[in-house]
Amino acid sequence: MYSAGELPGMDERVREHAELLVDWSARVEPGDDVVVSVAEDAHELGVAVAEALGERGATVTPLYGSAEFSRAYLKGAEAADGEDGPEFDDDPAVDRAIFDAADVYLRIGGGRNTTATADVSSETRQAYAKARQAVREARMDTDWVSTVHPTRSLAQQAGMAYEEYREFVYDAVLRDWEALADEMARMKTVLDEGDEVRIVTERDDAPDTDVQMSIAGRTAVNSAASVAYDSHNLPSGEVFTAPYDTEGEAFFDVPMTIDATRVRDVRLVFEGGEVVDFAAGAGEDALASVLDTDPGARRLGELGVGMNRGIDRFTDSILFDEKMGDTVHLAVGRAYDACLPDGESGNDSAVHVDMITDVQRDSRLEVDGEVVQRNGVFRWEEGFEA
Amino acid sequence: MYSAGELPGMDERVREHAELLVDWSARVEPGDDVVVSVAEDAHELGVAVAEALGERGATVTPLYGSAEFSRAYLKGAEAADGEDGPEFDDDPAVDRAIFDAADVYLRIGGGRNTTATADVSSETRQAYAKARQAVREARMDTDWVSTVHPTRSLAQQAGMAYEEYREFVYDAVLRDWEALADEMARMKTVLDEGDEVRIVTERDDAPDTDVQMSIAGRTAVNSAASVAYDSHNLPSGEVFTAPYDTEGEAFFDVPMTIDATRVRDVRLVFEGGEVVDFAAGAGEDALASVLDTDPGARRLGELGVGMNRGIDRFTDSILFDEKMGDTVHLAVGRAYDACLPDGESGNDSAVHVDMITDVQRDSRLEVDGEVVQRNGVFRWEEGFEA
Repeated sequence: MYSAGELPGMDERVREHAELLVDWSARVEPGDDVVVSVAEDAHELGVAVAEALGERGATVTPLYGSAEFSRAYLKGAEAADGEDGPEFDDDPAVDRAIFDAADVYLRIGGGRNTTATADVSSETRQAYAKARQAVREARMDTDWVSTVHPTRSLAQQAGMAYEEYREFVYDAVLRDWEALADEMARMKTVLDEGDEVRIVTERDDAPDTDVQMSIAGRTAVNSAASVAYDSHNLPSGEVFTAPYDTEGEAFFDVPMTIDATRVRDVRLVFEGGEVVDFAAGAGEDALASVLDTDPGARRLGELGVGMNRGIDRFTDSILFDEKMGDTVHLAVGRAYDACLPDGESGNDSAVHVDMITDVQRDSRLEVDGEVVQRNGVFRWEEGFEA
Repeated sequence: MYSAGELPGMDERVREHAELLVDWSARVEPGDDVVVSVAEDAHELGVAVAEALGERGATVTPLYGSAEFSRAYLKGAEAADGEDGPEFDDDPAVDRAIFDAADVYLRIGGGRNTTATADVSSETRQAYAKARQAVREARMDTDWVSTVHPTRSLAQQAGMAYEEYREFVYDAVLRDWEALADEMARMKTVLDEGDEVRIVTERDDAPDTDVQMSIAGRTAVNSAASVAYDSHNLPSGEVFTAPYDTEGEAFFDVPMTIDATRVRDVRLVFEGGEVVDFAAGAGEDALASVLDTDPGARRLGELGVGMNRGIDRFTDSILFDEKMGDTVHLAVGRAYDACLPDGESGNDSAVHVDMITDVQRDSRLEVDGEVVQRNGVFRWEEGFEA
């Protein structure tokens, strides 16, 4: 006999994932108004989440999170418009109303094609992203959590078999989050008490990184995959803060996908807190387009330290990659309010794009001149070399 | 080369269907806020609609109209609740906000299983339907249109091959709606000017129908598949009004599905405008459950005359069946405001369930004592026998 939220043949871990999302991550309470966005191939997890929400006494509204639907809309707008490109309503009444009214927003990714919007022009993307800023802000004022259902399309992006990818996802998601939160609290303390961070990598096979930034007055988030920790991703497993006054050069050796374009070997040069020069081994146009979105897109919004060692490889998905143990990432664009003193606003932008460096070897992370992590070993771990 | 809203291999008629829905049916204008509900297997039509909306300069919000999602939620609520059954928020903030803000609502049916909610108890259905009344009213205050994308599940319900069913749907949908509207205007005039309708069928193989009802003061809708005609279904092709003071007995020989239960050979007995006795050859419990929803569920909300001769068979889908040429239907439950004098409210109920009689033979429709249609032939058509 199958229970309610279990489709015939459903992996029992789908239900565990759903319950973790609803209870640990979003902390859904009876009477909460919950909006769930279900991607094209995320039906199974969507159904399991619906059952859990029914059991908790929440009210639910499902959105259709289809990239092919979005693409068709954007291409239609593009085709209809004149030389100035498409214009979009910058106060879309329905979407504003949805997120103003919602207590919780659960985004379940898992489409049929991770590059479904690859042929939408960057002008159209930018115009749409700018017009949606108010919606994005309203959405971030909810208790939002982003997760993915393992699909064949994500497996393909990761270069893995579907069955192999499912194991990878559940290994990363179905963890003892309380134990990981305790571990990450150490790193949070270091960042909260520190003023200046420096990241250095020196390798024969890649450009060096030597970048420093201020974090004085900022609060780090112990991102333990729960809104109770100001953490909004499942899986999570990173400690992040909002840096400023960045100086130096950074090289990111982990490939990524920006707006459906493959980008690798990004190099950024910072002066006075801003990106003044940049290059990429592939996808430089996509990178340029991000940096040109608005003035905030050239400043950092995030410094993150990946600490989820359940994630054992890069899969070209930022949700997983930036959480991988022994990585560091910097994001250009928007900063998260949780890192800022009450009432103060951090770097503002329509974009937030993370870029990752592997720090397992030939690297060190310093806070106020003291080494906190060298070659992937934290100073409170065995084998650390000061 | 494929254009934007056309998925590889997409039938060109999907795009025609989308454009008819957006332009003829919903009359979408630039700047309109449009909500589109996409069922599990209605992705193709959803994408084509998204493109058309982009081209028109509308703003769009896609909802996920999944019956399996709804079932899981309702079963979850059922499992969690005590002996009094599940309780649902009767003012769901997000859904209210959506339909209060929307100009247009497009519902695209086409799930994977038309009986996906068959194991949800009727108590739960009723509790949910009651709690959703305010949302339903807000939704009906938009320019809403309901259509379906042809799916294998609907083909199966119709007892047809998938390819055959697709032809059936596009024959019914892709019509010359202006020409049909002119034809239907004749029937509207008869109903608008009439006070009393009588429907009589006398057959050897079925119980007789002899039922009469008042339509004085009511306005008939020329349902030409467009909000410009107060018509909200695509396909449409019926003329309907809101009767009252019903007396007599009616037998409905066309089978139907109520809340995922097969119902056939329904007989209703009316006295003083209310159903005082009823029977069904199959599915009587489902019928009883509808009639017990609230007091309005025992009174008629609609009398409709099917005039779409492009629909040539019954397919167990009310969207098509009630529009079929040479049929008449009566609905218990909610009346449509368009049939009522301004400011007056008609029969109110959480339900609206249509029941159909084939009037191609041994039957007549009278208005104020004069025969308007006999054995499927209207009085303005060749072959009519007064």
